[in-house]
Amino acid sequence: MTACHGKDRFKRATVERRHMYDRLKGFQDRYPGEMAARREVVDTVEATADRYGFREIDTPRLERAAMWTDKSGDDIVDELYAFEDKGGRHVTLTPELTPTVARMVADKGQELTKPIKWRSTRPFWRYEQVQQGRFRQFSQTNVDIFGSSEPIADAEILAVTVDALTNLGLGAEDFEIRVSHRDILGALLRSFSADVDVEEAIRQVDKRAKVEEEAYLQGLVDAGLHYDQAEQFDDLLVAGDLDAMVETTASDELAAAVENLRAVLSACEDLGVREHLDLSLTTARGLDYYTGVVFEAFDATGEVSRAIFGGGRYDDLIESYGGPPTPAVGVAPGYATLSLLCQRAGVWPEESISTDYYVLTVGDTAATAARVARDLRERGHVVERDLADRGFGSQLEYADSIDAETVVVVGEQDLANDEVTVKDMDTGDQTTAPVDEFPGEHDRPTYDDFAE
Amino acid sequence: MTACHGKDRFKRATVERRHMYDRLKGFQDRYPGEMAARREVVDTVEATADRYGFREIDTPRLERAAMWTDKSGDDIVDELYAFEDKGGRHVTLTPELTPTVARMVADKGQELTKPIKWRSTRPFWRYEQVQQGRFRQFSQTNVDIFGSSEPIADAEILAVTVDALTNLGLGAEDFEIRVSHRDILGALLRSFSADVDVEEAIRQVDKRAKVEEEAYLQGLVDAGLHYDQAEQFDDLLVAGDLDAMVETTASDELAAAVENLRAVLSACEDLGVREHLDLSLTTARGLDYYTGVVFEAFDATGEVSRAIFGGGRYDDLIESYGGPPTPAVGVAPGYATLSLLCQRAGVWPEESISTDYYVLTVGDTAATAARVARDLRERGHVVERDLADRGFGSQLEYADSIDAETVVVVGEQDLANDEVTVKDMDTGDQTTAPVDEFPGEHDRPTYDDFAE
Repeated sequence: MTACHGKDRFKRATVERRHMYDRLKGFQDRYPGEMAARREVVDTVEATADRYGFREIDTPRLERAAMWTDKSGDDIVDELYAFEDKGGRHVTLTPELTPTVARMVADKGQELTKPIKWRSTRPFWRYEQVQQGRFRQFSQTNVDIFGSSEPIADAEILAVTVDALTNLGLGAEDFEIRVSHRDILGALLRSFSADVDVEEAIRQVDKRAKVEEEAYLQGLVDAGLHYDQAEQFDDLLVAGDLDAMVETTASDELAAAVENLRAVLSACEDLGVREHLDLSLTTARGLDYYTGVVFEAFDATGEVSRAIFGGGRYDDLIESYGGPPTPAVGVAPGYATLSLLCQRAGVWPEESISTDYYVLTVGDTAATAARVARDLRERGHVVERDLADRGFGSQLEYADSIDAETVVVVGEQDLANDEVTVKDMDTGDQTTAPVDEFPGEHDRPTYDDFAE
Repeated sequence: MTACHGKDRFKRATVERRHMYDRLKGFQDRYPGEMAARREVVDTVEATADRYGFREIDTPRLERAAMWTDKSGDDIVDELYAFEDKGGRHVTLTPELTPTVARMVADKGQELTKPIKWRSTRPFWRYEQVQQGRFRQFSQTNVDIFGSSEPIADAEILAVTVDALTNLGLGAEDFEIRVSHRDILGALLRSFSADVDVEEAIRQVDKRAKVEEEAYLQGLVDAGLHYDQAEQFDDLLVAGDLDAMVETTASDELAAAVENLRAVLSACEDLGVREHLDLSLTTARGLDYYTGVVFEAFDATGEVSRAIFGGGRYDDLIESYGGPPTPAVGVAPGYATLSLLCQRAGVWPEESISTDYYVLTVGDTAATAARVARDLRERGHVVERDLADRGFGSQLEYADSIDAETVVVVGEQDLANDEVTVKDMDTGDQTTAPVDEFPGEHDRPTYDDFAE
């Protein structure tokens, strides 16, 4: 009875301890199979950006909280993981990259050759409501161009976005990029009324798809439009007829914004990605700092209903963080939502690990097995061997579990004949090979090299 | 005067704002050149681990603080970036990986095929005194084997360590791995006195090189040895004569530990890395959780005086975090100190970026230039082009600044002849090529393909 009681107590203590060490809500552990798929997707996005000449940078995960709290009114502030460090500094886990790169651009000033093309993949943190595709630690690849206000820079950002998605195996039937322009929205709003709160009105446009029409129109009214102006404004956005807009309003500001958007789309045509872009003026992006072209990637089937990710031009932001006036445009594919799209479209990579060779030992053959493993590893292959002193059967089972392509059996009997056995794990076929020729001159020896 | 005053005020406000947004002490911004070198080093370490069959995982950067604060007496606790999150949880930026992987092993339990071989590269955070090679955000590649207590597992960790360093270009003249064994130290201590505080005594051994001899010996006395025992103990450690130790003490525990260490070293011999290992019983590792073989990598010249990084066996730790009893052994190369070693040894990669092609436009040739850039990118090359509407000279200067190998000049005049100009940036030689053949059938066209 005592022993049993003691065991219960131990079990309870263990359960309590495990609860105390539970993973935090909104955070993820990623095991090798899932990670291999995620890594393949990240690699594809990064490789796409690399081809455009974006260069990797690395950044602090912790920054002064003032970089966000100074910009009041932003939803981000309510979601900061902010605290005081041991030196009394008000710091925060970074919820986005932009203020940090703004500082980096500001710090080096004229030293940096323009345009600056940077990319980096890393997690960010926001204390949000956890839901499908939304976590409190989430990873993005930020891809940005600083120092060019030319439409071709916007076009390269759109092209790298489209190329990344197509390189992931997604086709025109899978995704669409909805392109809009902040200055078109702004100019249009101002053509109705000089007093309209443009930022607030654009925030309403961003919420358009998520709220009732009346609430949306009322939001525009609260931002300073008359009710009928709000209706007209929305009609113009939905129609998306740029010529008509310019003609109706006779606004030079609007005409210039339309010309800019058209130049971006034309450069996208040159880069071969125009077909993936849809003009969509009701797309606005939630963040206040965007200044020109903005865009969002969507699941073309609508099955993933939220925007997958977005980007745009933000010409004033670097300066607002103390940097020199620096036009900027960028995109930030986020992997939580991008995974949902890839899975929906059936292009999510297989969640599995793979192994080139398993070196199986039978008897006292450790020295030769180690030599074989070492030689194969030197040739760049993924090689595992027995680390648990197991028998033939369970080693073979393990080799199967790690999806080994070839098993090299280093057995005492074979070695007496200076041979090893080479087994193709796919077909189950096996043959012997001279131990000196494994790998010997072979770069990647397999069953086929030694079969009669 | 007013304007000037206003400008001053603006300038002052900018300076103040910039100060408020300063990077935190102990955190680093990494620009592309330095990052390229860092990336090459990390890639080499990861690729080495991959060949041994270590699989990548990904983990939360934030965990419950209790995972560390429960283990009182640890220096780590004083250096935690801990705080209360918006849900009232006591959380901390993770100062190390082990408790997290312990949870991951515990959570999946029997589902995971043993041995588990995991690796991951990511930052950790400790509020430490900032000094050369020591930052508050620091990055490591953790490489661990769970579920094997066999000496060959320790040997694989030592072999992957040595291979990583040699793959970085470091030779036997550059580094040495000092190998010790916690159970040898423990058994030796217990052979002097059953009452000695082994953990405390081992902490003293870890500090040995950093304090005066008298302070060190007094530390051992405080841990429960007589003064002459402390001297004898230290003499035995320094002599490092395992046979003599076993004979003198007649301790079965010590004999078993020595046998284990010898088996590890023998397996390292099989794996071809024995020559890089030095038996060094005065090496102890600071952390209490190590249980068997421990080791530290050092600069063989002593120029970098601190340990570069270390590792060892920690068989009890997974269970202490609520997991099943799981033997474990691992190593965690840290890049701050590893960079110092690579730089000292002259094998730190060049801190520069490289570019395969720059497509230079002259006149209204954007459409063709875009097509050329696109085709080259599709072949996997790094290609940049003019994003800033610049002239010939400054485009060429930019191409030089990004170390472009080949410049393709797409000019109006050449295009009239259906040609482009191909310039080798190394030699300065240039020639023309049919625009259709750039790239056309060529996988990676260069000046040499078109020179007469």
